[in-house]
Amino acid sequence: MSILQTTQLNIPAGMIDFGVGQPSLSLLPQAALKQAAEHRLSQGDASFLQYGAEQGDGYFRLTLAEFLSKHYGLPVEAGQLLITSGASQALDLICTRFTQPGDTIFVEEPTYFLALLIFRDYHLNLVGIPMDENGLIVEALEEKLAQHRPVFLYTIPAFHNPSAATLSAERRERLLRLSQEHNFLIVADEVYQMLDYTTPPPPPLAAHIDTNHVISLGSFSKITAPGLRLGWVQAAPARLEPLLHAGLLESGGGLNPFTSAVVQSLIELGLQDACLAHLKAVYQQRSAALSAALRQQTPGLSFVEPGGGFFIWLRLPEGRNAQEILVEARGRNVSFQPGIKFSSAQGLQNYLRLSFAYYDTAELLDGVNRLAQVINKDT
Amino acid sequence: MSILQTTQLNIPAGMIDFGVGQPSLSLLPQAALKQAAEHRLSQGDASFLQYGAEQGDGYFRLTLAEFLSKHYGLPVEAGQLLITSGASQALDLICTRFTQPGDTIFVEEPTYFLALLIFRDYHLNLVGIPMDENGLIVEALEEKLAQHRPVFLYTIPAFHNPSAATLSAERRERLLRLSQEHNFLIVADEVYQMLDYTTPPPPPLAAHIDTNHVISLGSFSKITAPGLRLGWVQAAPARLEPLLHAGLLESGGGLNPFTSAVVQSLIELGLQDACLAHLKAVYQQRSAALSAALRQQTPGLSFVEPGGGFFIWLRLPEGRNAQEILVEARGRNVSFQPGIKFSSAQGLQNYLRLSFAYYDTAELLDGVNRLAQVINKDT
Repeated sequence: MSILQTTQLNIPAGMIDFGVGQPSLSLLPQAALKQAAEHRLSQGDASFLQYGAEQGDGYFRLTLAEFLSKHYGLPVEAGQLLITSGASQALDLICTRFTQPGDTIFVEEPTYFLALLIFRDYHLNLVGIPMDENGLIVEALEEKLAQHRPVFLYTIPAFHNPSAATLSAERRERLLRLSQEHNFLIVADEVYQMLDYTTPPPPPLAAHIDTNHVISLGSFSKITAPGLRLGWVQAAPARLEPLLHAGLLESGGGLNPFTSAVVQSLIELGLQDACLAHLKAVYQQRSAALSAALRQQTPGLSFVEPGGGFFIWLRLPEGRNAQEILVEARGRNVSFQPGIKFSSAQGLQNYLRLSFAYYDTAELLDGVNRLAQVINKDT
Repeated sequence: MSILQTTQLNIPAGMIDFGVGQPSLSLLPQAALKQAAEHRLSQGDASFLQYGAEQGDGYFRLTLAEFLSKHYGLPVEAGQLLITSGASQALDLICTRFTQPGDTIFVEEPTYFLALLIFRDYHLNLVGIPMDENGLIVEALEEKLAQHRPVFLYTIPAFHNPSAATLSAERRERLLRLSQEHNFLIVADEVYQMLDYTTPPPPPLAAHIDTNHVISLGSFSKITAPGLRLGWVQAAPARLEPLLHAGLLESGGGLNPFTSAVVQSLIELGLQDACLAHLKAVYQQRSAALSAALRQQTPGLSFVEPGGGFFIWLRLPEGRNAQEILVEARGRNVSFQPGIKFSSAQGLQNYLRLSFAYYDTAELLDGVNRLAQVINKDT
C-alpha cells in the first residue's frame, strides 16, 4: 500500500472494477456534513467531546430512533439502540462478547466475504447454509440445526451482499421460530434495508427483537458515508447488556461520540433524508442500467434482478470458473469479485459479484461491454 | 443509565468526584474543532468520507508523524503508525490478533483499571508486577519471567495511571533487554507522554520499536478530546501487519477516517499545538494545587508528586481500607477511586486514586477539605 493512500482501494487508471462495493466519491455528502458539523459545533455544548455514554449519546439515540421508525415503518426506541463504529465493528464486538474460539456459527452461502475475516479472527467454526432467490433456504437451516448448535446465524436478509436476494416474509417467520426452538441468535446485517429501488423488502428482522433472539445491525456507511464509521446495533435491552459492558466501551466510552453528534445535526436538519433519497434515485438508475446491459450482452447468465442494495450476483454455467475469467478480464481493464470469496467452503466458483454503486451509468455500460467479450468468448 | 445521557459519567450535583479521570468540559476545544472541520470540509475532496486505507489515511499519518517527531523529540515515520479509534480500541485489537484465551499477560500492579476489563473479555490470565516510585520493578519482572511466558506486558511508562510514577531510563533499558531475551511484547500505553508539567519523562518506549518488541499506544483523548475516539499504534511495520489484516479493518476500512481528517486540519492549522500547550498549563496548576493541599491537609499520607499526567495515588497507612473510607466520603460529597480497582489480585486496598484533570483549582481545594475530614478522622 502506498503511504499516501487515503481510501481503502486504489483502482488502476482505466480499470472498471465491478468488484468495488463502495459508493462513488461524488455521492459522498461533503457539503451536507459541513453544514451539519457547523450546526453542531456552534451550539456551545461540548459534552459530545467528552468520554461518551457507553450506549451512545441518549439524544442521538432518540433522533436515530425517530429516523429508523420512519424509514423502517415500525416503532424503534432509543433504549433498543447501541451506537457503534459501523457494522463491522458491531460484528467484532458481538464475537468478542458472545463467542469463544471453536464455537460454531452459521453463515449464508454465499455471505459477505469480509465478515468471514472477522469470524476467522475469533477462531469460529463456520457452517454454510445455502440460499436461493428468496434468501436463506430454511429447510437447509433446519437440517444443519439437527447436527450443530450454533451461537448465532449471520444473515443479510434484505438485498443480500453478494446475492441481491431478499429473505421472503414466510421464511422470516420460519427462521424466527427456529431461532427460538433451537435457541440461537440471529445476527441480521440489515445495512441495505433502506436502499430499496423497485421492491420494498419485508420489515427488517429488527421488528422482532422482542423475541430476544434477534440482533439487528445498521450503518451510515451505505446511506451516508463509509468514512464516518458510524452504525448501530438494535436489540432487546437485555440482549444489549453484555455488549455495553465490554471493556472496550467501559474504557473508551461511547464508540463514536463526535461523529454521532455531527450526524445528529445531519438528521435534524433534514439532510440525512435528502441524502438517502438522492442515493436511492441514483442507485435505482444504475441498478436498472447494469441489469439491462447484462440481460442484453450476457444472455443466458442468470441473476436475481436487484430490488435494492449494491450488487448483482451473476451465475456462470456450471463448470466455468470465475477466477480464471477474472485473470483475462483484468487484461481487458475490467474486474469483479469471484464467487469463491463469498464461500465459507471454497465453493461458488461459477459465480461473480458485480456492484453498481461505484460507477455512473456510462461507465457501467462500458464495463459490461468489456466483460461480455471475456465471458461470451468461450460460452 | 438515563436514556438522555450524553457523557459517560453523570456526577451528582454537589459531589466533587476525584475519581473522574476525564478533562473538564471547559477544556474541550470545541471552537478549534469547528475551525478544523470547516477547513477540512471545504477542500472539495471527499475521499476521507470513503472506506479508508486500513492503516489510516497516509496524509494524516504523515502529519501525525511530524507532530509526534516534534513532541517526542525523535524521528517518527508514517509507516510506523496505524490510526485507531483510541487506545482502548488499540488494546482490544491487540488482544484480538495477538492472544488466545488462557494466554498469560503481565500487567503492572497497580494498572489502569478499565484495561483489566478488556483483558477479561479476551479471557487472558493476568500476572501482576509490582511498581514503586520509579515505575515497574524490573527485578520482580525478571522473577516472574522465570515462571511464566507472557504474550505481552502491558505498561504505562510515563505519568502512570493511577500511580503517577514514570519508569526510569535505566529500568527502560533493562525492560527492553528482557523483552528480547524472553521474547515478549511490550505494549506501552504512552497516552500521558506529552503531558509533562514539571519533569519531562525519558523518551517514550516508542523510541525502541525497531527492536520489534515494542508496541506504543497514543491517543488524542488526553491531548485533545476523548469524544473524538482517535488514537494511534506505533510499531515496526512488520509488527503492524497482523493488526492491519484484522477482519475489522479489512471490512470497515480505516478506523476513523472522518475524524482523522478533521484532526489533520487541527494539526495543520496549529490548533493542536495550542490545545496541548493550554492543557499543560492548566493541568500543571491543578496538579500543583492538589499536591500542595494534600501535603498540607493529609500529612503523613505519601504519594509520588505527579510530574505530569492526570493522577495522584495516595497511600493510606497499612491496614486502612480505601473502600470503607469511600462510603463515608460519599456521604460528605467527595469521592475517589479505591485502590483495589487497579489491582489484578484484589490488593492495593490502602490506596486511592485522585485525578486533578476534571476540576478547577478552587474545586480541588474544596474537595481536599472534605476528603481530609474523612481521612484524618481515624488516623
